[in-house]
Amino acid sequence: MRRVQLYDTTLRDGCQSEDVSFTLEDKLRIAERLDALGVHYVEGGWPGSNPRDAEFFRAAKRLRLRHARLAAFGSTRRAGIRAEDDHNLELCLRADTPVVTIVGKTWDLHVREDLRIPLEENLDVIRDSVAFLRRHVDEVIFDAEHFFDGWAASPAYALACVEAAAQAGATLVCLCDTRGGSLPPHVGLAVDAAQGMIPGTPLGIHCHNDAELAVANSLEAVERGCLQVQGTINGFGERCGNANLVSLVPTLQLKRGFHCVRPEQLATLAAVSRFVYELANLEPNKRQPYVGQSAFAHKGGLHVAAVQKQRETYEHIDPALVGNVQRVLVSDLAGRSNLLYKAAQFGIDLQSDRPAVQRLLEQLKNLESRGFAYEGAEASFELLMRGALEGDRRRFFRLIGFRVIDEKRHEGEPPIAEATIMLEGPNGEVEHTAAQGNGPVHALDQALRKALGKFYPEVHEVRLLDYKVRVLGSGEGTGALVRVLIESGDERERWGTVGVSHNVIEASWQALVDSMDYLLHKRRDPAA
Amino acid sequence: MRRVQLYDTTLRDGCQSEDVSFTLEDKLRIAERLDALGVHYVEGGWPGSNPRDAEFFRAAKRLRLRHARLAAFGSTRRAGIRAEDDHNLELCLRADTPVVTIVGKTWDLHVREDLRIPLEENLDVIRDSVAFLRRHVDEVIFDAEHFFDGWAASPAYALACVEAAAQAGATLVCLCDTRGGSLPPHVGLAVDAAQGMIPGTPLGIHCHNDAELAVANSLEAVERGCLQVQGTINGFGERCGNANLVSLVPTLQLKRGFHCVRPEQLATLAAVSRFVYELANLEPNKRQPYVGQSAFAHKGGLHVAAVQKQRETYEHIDPALVGNVQRVLVSDLAGRSNLLYKAAQFGIDLQSDRPAVQRLLEQLKNLESRGFAYEGAEASFELLMRGALEGDRRRFFRLIGFRVIDEKRHEGEPPIAEATIMLEGPNGEVEHTAAQGNGPVHALDQALRKALGKFYPEVHEVRLLDYKVRVLGSGEGTGALVRVLIESGDERERWGTVGVSHNVIEASWQALVDSMDYLLHKRRDPAA
Repeated sequence: MRRVQLYDTTLRDGCQSEDVSFTLEDKLRIAERLDALGVHYVEGGWPGSNPRDAEFFRAAKRLRLRHARLAAFGSTRRAGIRAEDDHNLELCLRADTPVVTIVGKTWDLHVREDLRIPLEENLDVIRDSVAFLRRHVDEVIFDAEHFFDGWAASPAYALACVEAAAQAGATLVCLCDTRGGSLPPHVGLAVDAAQGMIPGTPLGIHCHNDAELAVANSLEAVERGCLQVQGTINGFGERCGNANLVSLVPTLQLKRGFHCVRPEQLATLAAVSRFVYELANLEPNKRQPYVGQSAFAHKGGLHVAAVQKQRETYEHIDPALVGNVQRVLVSDLAGRSNLLYKAAQFGIDLQSDRPAVQRLLEQLKNLESRGFAYEGAEASFELLMRGALEGDRRRFFRLIGFRVIDEKRHEGEPPIAEATIMLEGPNGEVEHTAAQGNGPVHALDQALRKALGKFYPEVHEVRLLDYKVRVLGSGEGTGALVRVLIESGDERERWGTVGVSHNVIEASWQALVDSMDYLLHKRRDPAA
Repeated sequence: MRRVQLYDTTLRDGCQSEDVSFTLEDKLRIAERLDALGVHYVEGGWPGSNPRDAEFFRAAKRLRLRHARLAAFGSTRRAGIRAEDDHNLELCLRADTPVVTIVGKTWDLHVREDLRIPLEENLDVIRDSVAFLRRHVDEVIFDAEHFFDGWAASPAYALACVEAAAQAGATLVCLCDTRGGSLPPHVGLAVDAAQGMIPGTPLGIHCHNDAELAVANSLEAVERGCLQVQGTINGFGERCGNANLVSLVPTLQLKRGFHCVRPEQLATLAAVSRFVYELANLEPNKRQPYVGQSAFAHKGGLHVAAVQKQRETYEHIDPALVGNVQRVLVSDLAGRSNLLYKAAQFGIDLQSDRPAVQRLLEQLKNLESRGFAYEGAEASFELLMRGALEGDRRRFFRLIGFRVIDEKRHEGEPPIAEATIMLEGPNGEVEHTAAQGNGPVHALDQALRKALGKFYPEVHEVRLLDYKVRVLGSGEGTGALVRVLIESGDERERWGTVGVSHNVIEASWQALVDSMDYLLHKRRDPAA
């Protein structure tokens, strides 16, 4: 079984993403997670370009990595000076890592137009820089910048550059598709050519995703013999991002039989992906291959029926292998089989109660035709299901009335939002209270929880995590139907609820009430 | 130059995305945009599975498509009945489209486990269904479901299925990677095998993205001879999505020399991508290849310097070819060129007024950092630009104050929404009035127009066509920032306006006021 080395550059190239930036503490935590995942190399930053990266390497000394080797990144020496005198190379050494990776030019256009030195001189620059570093560190990786474009333009020169690095002692030469626009057949031929030139030096591959081909190009290069694959978690990186290790690892390991990490490490992949999204403060990509929330979600009725008979009919791998789970979505495309599956998930036995299923199907059809959607609102759906099965669902309070007032008195200032609410508690006690908020829904939410808190103090533990509004249909302007989705959470779980109305306040009210009801059912209803 | 046919299934497979659903009006608008883009086939839906799709085909008769042919989607007949008696095929014909596409099984596992019929009978099912449709429609496309998995498991049977479809008269056989887990080399070999089996029938390719290889697999299939490529805008689709046409078209056309669409159509690609995101009410993917906001954005200092000397050093294509623009992050230069680019779009000459550009840049930077976005709000942007150019923009009225009340008095009934408003007209007259509405924003809209109508009767001609609310960022629940987009129109044109606030009423108010201002400028301001 051929081994493939994973070289992660989330902490360096990944931070070139337009909306990604990590604190020092984030970087240290990510390095630890990558180590636990079984990544072989963690590139921590570019101390010569970013002073905060030098700080990372100082702090990283306290990490206890079991498996991963830390790499510092830099570039070849400047022209016209000795490697010994190059400040940037000096900073790479000061990072005190077992591995240093340096990038050098291999495309003659860049040497002429960007460096503005003779082609021969660039070969000296590469040789000197690699040889200098090798005298001080264990492993020196040479990143051949623009290798694929360079090889297309001037094959002999691009190959001379990687030969110079190999001769000077580079322990690995990594071929980079820096512009990210190469296609797999071209990558394959160029890897073959490099291998022919420096047969004794292992090769790596570093791709960007500008033509949505970074994963395909990396696979092709590994098939042609590259030992190391460079990439980032979730494909973060400059412009369209780097090769996504989260897609590459399971494909290499589960579909092509290469060894990257241990199976129990692979099973943490979805968690690592979400962890990195969380620290970057970005919404995870639902549609992300292997690990996305939708990656094993089934919506079409036919698919759901088939997948329940035999999982592999519509799933290319068992989601558990990468730490993901199968999900069945509830929507107007779905039929009876979706419903039974969902019920089983919530621990409700619908199989034995056919009239209840029929009732629920009709209710659902009716609600969906009125604009309700339960894809992001499993808690509302569970309440609906329990209601259909058990007759009326338990009521925790009765609304007597509410009023929300938005009053604007000055052109430059937003309106003041105030809500008053009156409701009846479990033993007939009436609570009448009021609250302000940033807007009408916020004010209503505050007032509802203030009032309910008198009877059920646990409502104060709930946090509203997300609030989405979607106007259904167009052509009706501000008189259109509105769907509100609310996501709530306590320290144990998260749940979604939905409301629909022509009135955004009413739709929000429905979703707020479902959220509170769901919590109270979980906490107070022994059957739930 | 080899031609490649584009077959778009955004309106069918794209709607299987977990968080994508379009209204009927959205679907009609998307079909028109796809036609203008130069797409050859637009698959409108599955009338047999979704009643709303049948409605689409009825309404689509009023579209004037210049180029694209509409396709209805369905599946092969049920086992045990005649094709003539199959309700699902009947509904495909009732869609009354020049093209019908039907999906049929080609993987023996599915025939045995899902259909539960003998393998021979499935060949009859395919033959009958295709032959029946061919008697009624021009073009019948056979979607060979699971072809690549089927060919891996039982090559002879998978090929017998596509042969049955071809012999029965399918005008094209499309090979589907339904589970989305195939790799390019396998796709290449399987396409060769199909081509050998049915050399006289053109082939298509339909890929899913479960291993992040849908684009690579589609490219490989086209290189091997497939005439048609099926996919969706932005890669929407079930689970991890379908092959992304927005990535495929420029790669095929700019890098491989195939002909898909005219260059001036290709230059609208970024706009079409954003349009579909907007209608789906989803945040566009910044990192999306070719069209994303970051696709030609440069952050690293070295890259920025090089790219300014010579664009091709870090850009794999000229972004203008796909309607995108280069951006340099955290740099005044980039902002300025963007602005001039936008001004030119609106026919405003900013070139000659450098201080105004500076003023506008600062204003815009400030507004965008507060959550404003002008992609769908050209009217607000024009007002802003005119304001910066001409000093204070003309004021048509002054708000003294408004109050909106939502009052709910019964559990089963929605609240009653009432707005009162007081404003000062052009000659200091004060108008104080009130109106009811379906919800708070509707009531405010009605009251504003009632009051303004006293001074400017033309406001009664305006219709509010669409109203969208997006909550910006998550993690703050109902206290989050809200962006409102309003689309208005009279008999001459349509215009979009925007507002942002923590308070949805305030954000809506800003967008409503911009809409009225824009109208009054157009009608009453000779310079506009």
